[in-house]
Amino acid sequence: MSEAVRIGLLGRGTVGGAFHDLLAQRAGAIEAATGRRPEIAGVLRRSEGDIDRLLEEAEIVVEVIGGIDPARDYVLRALEAGRHVVTANKQLIAQFGDELFDAAREAGVQLRFEAAVAGVVPVIRVIQESLAVTEITKVFGIVNGTTNFILSEMASTGATYADTLRRAQELGYAEADPSEDVGGADAAAKMAILARLAFHTPVRLDEVQFQGITEIQPDDISYAKELGLSLKLLGVAERRDGGISVRVFPCFLYPHHPLAPVEGPFNAVMVEAPAITEITMSGPGAGGLETASAVLGDVVSILSGRPAVHAIHEPLEMVRDINSSFYLHLEVADRPGVLAQIADVLGRNEVSVRSVVQRGMGNDARLVMVMHEGPESSFFRALEEIATLEFLRAQPRAIRVIEEEFV
Amino acid sequence: MSEAVRIGLLGRGTVGGAFHDLLAQRAGAIEAATGRRPEIAGVLRRSEGDIDRLLEEAEIVVEVIGGIDPARDYVLRALEAGRHVVTANKQLIAQFGDELFDAAREAGVQLRFEAAVAGVVPVIRVIQESLAVTEITKVFGIVNGTTNFILSEMASTGATYADTLRRAQELGYAEADPSEDVGGADAAAKMAILARLAFHTPVRLDEVQFQGITEIQPDDISYAKELGLSLKLLGVAERRDGGISVRVFPCFLYPHHPLAPVEGPFNAVMVEAPAITEITMSGPGAGGLETASAVLGDVVSILSGRPAVHAIHEPLEMVRDINSSFYLHLEVADRPGVLAQIADVLGRNEVSVRSVVQRGMGNDARLVMVMHEGPESSFFRALEEIATLEFLRAQPRAIRVIEEEFV
Repeated sequence: MSEAVRIGLLGRGTVGGAFHDLLAQRAGAIEAATGRRPEIAGVLRRSEGDIDRLLEEAEIVVEVIGGIDPARDYVLRALEAGRHVVTANKQLIAQFGDELFDAAREAGVQLRFEAAVAGVVPVIRVIQESLAVTEITKVFGIVNGTTNFILSEMASTGATYADTLRRAQELGYAEADPSEDVGGADAAAKMAILARLAFHTPVRLDEVQFQGITEIQPDDISYAKELGLSLKLLGVAERRDGGISVRVFPCFLYPHHPLAPVEGPFNAVMVEAPAITEITMSGPGAGGLETASAVLGDVVSILSGRPAVHAIHEPLEMVRDINSSFYLHLEVADRPGVLAQIADVLGRNEVSVRSVVQRGMGNDARLVMVMHEGPESSFFRALEEIATLEFLRAQPRAIRVIEEEFV
Repeated sequence: MSEAVRIGLLGRGTVGGAFHDLLAQRAGAIEAATGRRPEIAGVLRRSEGDIDRLLEEAEIVVEVIGGIDPARDYVLRALEAGRHVVTANKQLIAQFGDELFDAAREAGVQLRFEAAVAGVVPVIRVIQESLAVTEITKVFGIVNGTTNFILSEMASTGATYADTLRRAQELGYAEADPSEDVGGADAAAKMAILARLAFHTPVRLDEVQFQGITEIQPDDISYAKELGLSLKLLGVAERRDGGISVRVFPCFLYPHHPLAPVEGPFNAVMVEAPAITEITMSGPGAGGLETASAVLGDVVSILSGRPAVHAIHEPLEMVRDINSSFYLHLEVADRPGVLAQIADVLGRNEVSVRSVVQRGMGNDARLVMVMHEGPESSFFRALEEIATLEFLRAQPRAIRVIEEEFV
């Protein structure tokens, strides 16, 4: 049996609970990847438990209490005691990063915080590792899911800010006191962290200008829609005139902008540099399980020490017949009964039609169909049969369609 | 002076040349990040140079020759000699991964290959590190820039495949012999690598089904456009019925799909798992400098050994007045001269108007304007002046607009 790694958990709310379960569920995979079997050394809640005893027993401390007090004190003591720390706490890193990074450096331990910005979207790792020596010129994006959900909803329903906020609270996308999110302070803390990492410079949170979405009128969104624009709360950190600018503000985007399609509670971050052009990363910005996954990724990185050489766990069989949706293009004779005959072939092969468009007449008649998802083998059987129908004027053309639609 | 790290470079084509220059240009940043100053130990071209001497002198070997022969032999010898290797060679990893990973494991050295899939998009690192213990269910995306450029062009111009291929060749997006790209074999090799890493299973390249874009008709694209669909060459690797499926095929996407807006020579990869929902990453899939950046990221990771605690390099000043484009919403009295007066204020403050829409009449008259980019201080000066105009029926509303449009 491999040596256990004992993890001390600070906080047992939504994220803490999800992390606890995920760690148990992925224990086998963690052992396979790192050679160490994870164990929970103890759990400390905000108001109960003994931090000294937890630090004695834990090798890695995971902080998901949130807020500054007592998280700052606990994390600092953990680092000083030579414990690696993983935290999801953006305010802690944004406000007290200097103190904590110094403590980690002095103790020779790791301080990781992927979950503090954009949830499971790996923007911290990519900036700190993939782009460690890249001269980043700009980092910007949608780093607050609550406001992105509200703005998406306002655009699709035409409802007011106040009504949409209430709906977001009902759905669990906004807190009872939403001011940190909707006022822009949450996004400002995240942008301060990203700017610090991207530009290797200290960023004081009180220097980050921010503006929220509380003043947005449904009018603004609907007029802008006519101009083809969509509204997002953007965080922007960029090099400017030998200095930097770090700001948060609501902003319209033209339709082809990579951030324009990011809707609902999703986050997305773009990084620009001459040597990379740009990288865009997006995904869920919050959620207990997603945040716990980001925390777990950091824990595994600490355990890996250095990246593992790729290892095979088990051979998996290659599956051949899978489900797909298809587009089918048929050039047909323009006469009665053609559609019925094709529909009959499809029906007998259990292929279900989602939409049909008939175009042209006479020598240019065409049927363009999109099918619902089903086994590819059924579709291809139907296709083979259709190809033999005497009223076809050309080989049928079939192309797969991704049917899944996103938020 | 810090200890030098000597890097042996195999190949001096577009990527090799770009890497050579980038390494020199970022030498200071590399030393600051890793404590080691990089030096080129030697360069070996396909047909000239002594591999034994290079291996003696290099600590890290960078392989950007491409192809199997002699790359396979060189990389294997480098690993066996205890040298870390970074390669951009997808065919090498897809076809001979097992052999190479074994050699790296036995020698206790790293084999890194971020640039082999999706260029500078950090999909390898994210799958291997952030998601090392995540049970990934599906990895899919656009992993060939040549075909994505051709399909985007066909959609926007209505031109045939053959004409568009010629244009791609003129622009340098397609090679003189494009068959590996347009036939799907290039994407198949990349998907074999992603499937192997995501599912921790060996994937034989000859088991990956692939289909290219050479048969696509302009018709298919234009009919599909009417249905709101866009055409992409997709690679899909997923768990299915206890096994896996790895395939490459042209495929239509509905407009809200996160991959639908990916156009031109860009790549984008999505990773799905219950614990993360989904992560999408996109960026340039090729380009000498971008590929060299991905290679350099791998070199730096090898030098870091373990992730550095974040270090400040230099304090940067916070810049206040930056350039922006604005949307301006004005409720105005419906009478002659209003637009002229506003235009006059804007003009005197050197704010240039991009578009104007006038809506409503009488008591509901509104002017909605979008400005070209300019100093924010000028705009706010103009805004202050506009707010005092007596024909305004409400406070003006201003929101920033991202003007930049993408491929």
